[in-house]
Amino acid sequence: MNLLIKNVTLLPMDGKNEIIDNTNVYIKGDKIAHIGEIREDIKVDRIIDGSRKLAMPGLINAHTHIGMSLFRNFADDLPLHDWLTKKIWPQEAKLTAEDVYWASLLSMVEMIQSGTTTFLDMYFFMEEVGRGLLESGMRGVLSRGVIEEKGKEKEKIEGTKSLYEEWNGEGDGRIRVVVAPHAPYTCSPSYLKELLDLAVELNAPIHIHLSETKKEVEDSYKLYGKSPIKHVYDLGLFKQPTIAAHCVHLDDEDIKILKENNVSPVNNPSSNLKLASGFAPVDKMLKEGVNVALGTDGSSSNNNLNMFEEIHLASLVNKAVNMDAISVKAIDALKMATINGAKALQWDDEIGSIEVNKKADIILIDLDKPHLYPLHNLISLLAYSVQGSDVDTVIVDGKIIMENREIKTLDVEKIMYNAEKLSKDLINR
Amino acid sequence: MNLLIKNVTLLPMDGKNEIIDNTNVYIKGDKIAHIGEIREDIKVDRIIDGSRKLAMPGLINAHTHIGMSLFRNFADDLPLHDWLTKKIWPQEAKLTAEDVYWASLLSMVEMIQSGTTTFLDMYFFMEEVGRGLLESGMRGVLSRGVIEEKGKEKEKIEGTKSLYEEWNGEGDGRIRVVVAPHAPYTCSPSYLKELLDLAVELNAPIHIHLSETKKEVEDSYKLYGKSPIKHVYDLGLFKQPTIAAHCVHLDDEDIKILKENNVSPVNNPSSNLKLASGFAPVDKMLKEGVNVALGTDGSSSNNNLNMFEEIHLASLVNKAVNMDAISVKAIDALKMATINGAKALQWDDEIGSIEVNKKADIILIDLDKPHLYPLHNLISLLAYSVQGSDVDTVIVDGKIIMENREIKTLDVEKIMYNAEKLSKDLINR
Repeated sequence: MNLLIKNVTLLPMDGKNEIIDNTNVYIKGDKIAHIGEIREDIKVDRIIDGSRKLAMPGLINAHTHIGMSLFRNFADDLPLHDWLTKKIWPQEAKLTAEDVYWASLLSMVEMIQSGTTTFLDMYFFMEEVGRGLLESGMRGVLSRGVIEEKGKEKEKIEGTKSLYEEWNGEGDGRIRVVVAPHAPYTCSPSYLKELLDLAVELNAPIHIHLSETKKEVEDSYKLYGKSPIKHVYDLGLFKQPTIAAHCVHLDDEDIKILKENNVSPVNNPSSNLKLASGFAPVDKMLKEGVNVALGTDGSSSNNNLNMFEEIHLASLVNKAVNMDAISVKAIDALKMATINGAKALQWDDEIGSIEVNKKADIILIDLDKPHLYPLHNLISLLAYSVQGSDVDTVIVDGKIIMENREIKTLDVEKIMYNAEKLSKDLINR
Repeated sequence: MNLLIKNVTLLPMDGKNEIIDNTNVYIKGDKIAHIGEIREDIKVDRIIDGSRKLAMPGLINAHTHIGMSLFRNFADDLPLHDWLTKKIWPQEAKLTAEDVYWASLLSMVEMIQSGTTTFLDMYFFMEEVGRGLLESGMRGVLSRGVIEEKGKEKEKIEGTKSLYEEWNGEGDGRIRVVVAPHAPYTCSPSYLKELLDLAVELNAPIHIHLSETKKEVEDSYKLYGKSPIKHVYDLGLFKQPTIAAHCVHLDDEDIKILKENNVSPVNNPSSNLKLASGFAPVDKMLKEGVNVALGTDGSSSNNNLNMFEEIHLASLVNKAVNMDAISVKAIDALKMATINGAKALQWDDEIGSIEVNKKADIILIDLDKPHLYPLHNLISLLAYSVQGSDVDTVIVDGKIIMENREIKTLDVEKIMYNAEKLSKDLINR
């Protein structure tokens, strides 16, 4: 199918950081074939009127746990330890594959409706997320979060291996699999090395939580005499491309290690605020040239999967933290949510910007909204004023998966019904 | 007109902080007449189906400059001084009454669409905001921001007086007027006293900016040997009920003065973050029993007037600032945006909660949204997950001013057109 988005305002995120007025984007199959003037005799199956709309690359949620949506607003305003041990873990222990399937679909609906086209998930029952990706048409990276457990060490490594073998490259290449040791405080050094060996064997990136809380860093010093980042670096983990969720509590040496090893930290502003983890040094990392991506974390510590909210927070919060109104500018936050996310996932050859020969992962923002008027600087507008609900159309891999806010690929009513039902069942199970 | 909201989930904010399932709210004229079981023979002109909806008090935006919406996304990512002197002030100098009229209507559309029913405005051409309030049906408090200007001292005081005489109590009591010395750094001590005398004469509250930036506090110490709050307190300003916008940089004595004099600080999280002003000590003030209200500030330093975003920020940001996940709970942020705002405006006898005999200022949230599912704790949901765009219906003074997101009182298309046109004219003027 060939699509033409006509007369659209375009933010390509191609490195020029500029808006192009009134242009056209021609999509041939799954790829962007041409941007600009269009020949009159061009063959088009479908024209999308782009007037009064802004096209930008689909957002990339670079760290989430989408199966957790069943716990949205289930446990809040609690200290982290109580939240985990008294509320979340007892429920998670009861989760079934069916729960995760419907929870993941619910999350995909929410992500599509707020402009996310690609996500990196870390959870369990990941086959269910794979099934959901086939149905929703989204692009996603699966990772089974591996926590070391006595007697199950080999089984879990095999689980990641079989997940990779079964799912990597599925959905016409929309689905990829990476290796995810949960964190250095849940995996011993030797187990981390085994998981590293697996990543090398599969030639897959690594996804891990690093330096999320002050306590985690303090514990790492007690146990290993060094920071979590130095610890896993010394173990050789960063030989593989690594996506490091959180990276809140860092010292200068940590940032240097991230930079020199091309590690991509993922900033999760809502979650870091809500769980009182702290403020990641985003401005400093960006200035040092570190590739900082953006994520929502799970919807039970957020409590949503709305990347425009994270863009908004990343641009606002860092200004006050640094007492500098030009810290993390609008365009920086937009990069974090698009091209930096693509680089983090080692996928920037295909996604993260709107450029010829890249995959057609494009969202259209409806500019005709009172809260966006008058239209001045559209880059500012995207970071400071646009809401997730202003996303009108979502295209992934050249296919329209939402148009006029209507999702084409999923039965939204049924998903909401099942998620509601299963979440109530689960509590009483 | 008598309205019945039937089978609704209700958060009355009446001090009990509890959700009432499946109840009815009966509105007679402009007031709430009954909550609960309804007699079969009750006389109703209009029934609103409240099922799958949540009713809560209309939000109160306790500090804004709504005429500034023409500058939304006009000047961002700039240091405060450049933002003001190079961008905003030169444009404001050219503003006409017509500009402010349309800018204010645009802001009212945005506020209604995101659940605000009452706002406290500080700007100029305030008669235009009054006209807008008559048309929109919103509730509002007008204040002319008075900056001392040589030769215009008396004229400006007379301006506030005539604004009060012309507009206070208009719109069936929906419109009130207060006295607004802009700030202690733009009004001399003697001028502040003259404005205080006027407030006493009119028996009107005072609205002022206090301790917004670190520099303001440092300058106050240089000039007066004390903080801005101590300075205006010593001048006697707090004899009148005072609404103090910002209050970011406070010491313990400042907080004690605010508490003992029943001064209501207004927290403006987006603006304080965006302009790098800092983090107001919201948690500490709430724990000391200070009545902290919530506001958006103007849409050129935000860049929107969406109170749900401010609720979200107030509840999230303070947790990380205090490294305490139970700091500023969901219900606290909701109070700030409703009953505390009403108290700040000295209007809590009529608004800020849904109780019998109070004015019917009610919003309905559509709960049937994927990003709100599954429905667990609805108080958490309102603070952490609800978007302004989830507001379905808005009732002010017993009249429906928005239903199914359609504004009944204003011509939205015309307002957007004029705001866009005037903003472009203005720049080239």
